[in-house]
Amino acid sequence: MSPSQPLSPEAQLALLERGTVQIHQRAELAERLVQAARTGRPLRVKTGYDPTAPDLHLGHTVTLTKMRQFQDLGHIAVFLIGDFTGRIGDPTGKKSTRPALTKEQVLENAETYKRQVFKVLDPERTEVRFNSEWMDAMTAADLVRLASHYNLARLMEREDFRSRYQNNEPVSVHELLYPLVQAYDSVALQADVELGGTDQIFNLLVGREIQRDYGQPPQVVMTLPLLVGTDARLEDGSLVGDKMSKSLGNYIGINEPPESIFGKVMSISDPLMWHYTELLSRRTNEELASLKGDPLRAKKELGQELVARFYSAEVAAEVRTAFERRFSQHQLPDEIPEVTLVAPPEGLPLPSALKEAGLVSTTSDARRNITQGAVKVDGEKVTAVERVLATPGCYLLQKGKLGICRLRLTPASE
Amino acid sequence: MSPSQPLSPEAQLALLERGTVQIHQRAELAERLVQAARTGRPLRVKTGYDPTAPDLHLGHTVTLTKMRQFQDLGHIAVFLIGDFTGRIGDPTGKKSTRPALTKEQVLENAETYKRQVFKVLDPERTEVRFNSEWMDAMTAADLVRLASHYNLARLMEREDFRSRYQNNEPVSVHELLYPLVQAYDSVALQADVELGGTDQIFNLLVGREIQRDYGQPPQVVMTLPLLVGTDARLEDGSLVGDKMSKSLGNYIGINEPPESIFGKVMSISDPLMWHYTELLSRRTNEELASLKGDPLRAKKELGQELVARFYSAEVAAEVRTAFERRFSQHQLPDEIPEVTLVAPPEGLPLPSALKEAGLVSTTSDARRNITQGAVKVDGEKVTAVERVLATPGCYLLQKGKLGICRLRLTPASE
Repeated sequence: MSPSQPLSPEAQLALLERGTVQIHQRAELAERLVQAARTGRPLRVKTGYDPTAPDLHLGHTVTLTKMRQFQDLGHIAVFLIGDFTGRIGDPTGKKSTRPALTKEQVLENAETYKRQVFKVLDPERTEVRFNSEWMDAMTAADLVRLASHYNLARLMEREDFRSRYQNNEPVSVHELLYPLVQAYDSVALQADVELGGTDQIFNLLVGREIQRDYGQPPQVVMTLPLLVGTDARLEDGSLVGDKMSKSLGNYIGINEPPESIFGKVMSISDPLMWHYTELLSRRTNEELASLKGDPLRAKKELGQELVARFYSAEVAAEVRTAFERRFSQHQLPDEIPEVTLVAPPEGLPLPSALKEAGLVSTTSDARRNITQGAVKVDGEKVTAVERVLATPGCYLLQKGKLGICRLRLTPASE
Repeated sequence: MSPSQPLSPEAQLALLERGTVQIHQRAELAERLVQAARTGRPLRVKTGYDPTAPDLHLGHTVTLTKMRQFQDLGHIAVFLIGDFTGRIGDPTGKKSTRPALTKEQVLENAETYKRQVFKVLDPERTEVRFNSEWMDAMTAADLVRLASHYNLARLMEREDFRSRYQNNEPVSVHELLYPLVQAYDSVALQADVELGGTDQIFNLLVGREIQRDYGQPPQVVMTLPLLVGTDARLEDGSLVGDKMSKSLGNYIGINEPPESIFGKVMSISDPLMWHYTELLSRRTNEELASLKGDPLRAKKELGQELVARFYSAEVAAEVRTAFERRFSQHQLPDEIPEVTLVAPPEGLPLPSALKEAGLVSTTSDARRNITQGAVKVDGEKVTAVERVLATPGCYLLQKGKLGICRLRLTPASE
């Protein structure tokens, strides 16, 4: 999906700004892309993660996908793990969300992270860095000097600091230092670009100022939207809904089974699919434009692209084919009841399966339905009453227009 | 002047609280004095100085004198030089009053400091410490942890932070760290007591809280008034005036000549003298009480005590005797003009001296005045016209009621 011909700086810019909320400053990014093309020096594109929550869903991959687009254009992704701050945590114990981590926990989390992010990022063009590399060597005096580069009034422009301060909720002094540490990371990494969610805009802009103070050209800052969940609705032409999150159940996890990822993508509304596509697809703008007239195809393309990303191209093709085979003529029902049966190792005859799944009341009723052509297995009509479903296996059973069940056969536990 | 008998803890407390503005908490100080008497472990009494302005006047010695009282009672003075912060200064360059100092400058200033402070403090019971001892070893991570012990709202209770913030004047983030560093100094020094000016109260109290957080009993905080200058007036029973300062010229410097220190003390008003005595004398409360009825004597005692402190007991006795000899019957004029002459090594005849000093227009006029008994040298009438003033020497010349001049004779430079 990476362009076979190097894109012009203008075309790179058009691709990179797709789906972004803000770019500070667009002209600077344009200039840097021109310069990179001229000098052959790739841009260093930073994004920071704290080393705590390593189980990613699609929402986390919005930024990673943008990083990957940079990589596809020949630039370097710098994946920064903020272990310095993570290992300090919040020693006041006021915020249980930031427990201090040990060095071992950080490294373990980093490995988990890497396994996941390298499904999106190209490892060959990625630097994985830990800010402890430079922060552990930083003295208190250095930190005081760093702090001298910023003033309180500017820090208090950050929404959460200001509102907590005004509402008499405690803001610990060390919290004021963290944006400066994050900013200094950009100095240490010589970042050309930093990406983050819209909630990160304040910290990202501090990076620009601190880099300037340390004699570096200020990084370009790009923010990306927080991905809305699979339950988002269209209201007055806009997508409205909670952001994707595990706790709300409106997520697509990158470790889910391929069928589940593909199926969830197929189940979302068209407007949401276009939104996800814009943010999560590595396709060029031109490729996306060519899909505009065919939302069903676009949805399948997105599902396939995501499964290919998190598993493999082969698995993605299989999942798509299987899906098309089963549901080419029908809408996918919102929810399919699932039944799991312990079945004999030699398999279960289809009439018994239909009865156990609750689609018919007797096996003779089942046989009649089969011979009348009212029964499908995995979307295909079955008329042979002697058909046996193998154990183990997972089958989509349909009877008539309304009866549907996903049946899982498992062998008796040894 | 140190008490020959160990004072009871109650008597120690009465002496130590003399002249203080605030004690947090008086009961804790009482308790610590009792404990020190019982265990024989002296209290560690800290005061901090920044290593910039080493030319001290009496105003600087108010705190030092309180430290000396502690020493006289058997306790330890910890004289802390804040070289860590001094060497960082204010790198933003916003405040020209805090230039960064080199290590060499700090050490040089420290030596100058020591020469001066040991005129007040007993070197045997003094620890001179530099906060770079522990702050240079402190990592950025340690400083973040330290900062986590304090919150922004508390820091903003400091008057200058609050008012600058509210008036949109910049408060640099590193300035917020300095009170925490000063507080941590108390942890590192295991201070039992910290002394400071009333303008230091905020920082001193932060020390209490940080010590508690680091598992130490919180230090007793004592503040002392800013000494008013020699030009303070009495208004409605209170002394009113600017604080003593070099730039206002209302100071008594500890490096001034003995006569000048003694003379300036003698020239201040009685209420100001009592105020200075309370703050600057090492005498016991009982000794001061016994002086209450005799302000002239009290003033001489203070002048003598201060000259003894900054020079020696002998010099102090001489200066007092000379003063009494000269001015026992007269008021000291506000200002005595001074004239310095290069004189021959064999000395200068008095008539020539009177002419050169501008008290007479001719030497014959001088001789007539001498023979008429109108001329005094150092307060004593001289009627011998052949009197020669020795070189080198310093003389107070008087002619009649109005003519007065201090004449310094120096030999021609070799």
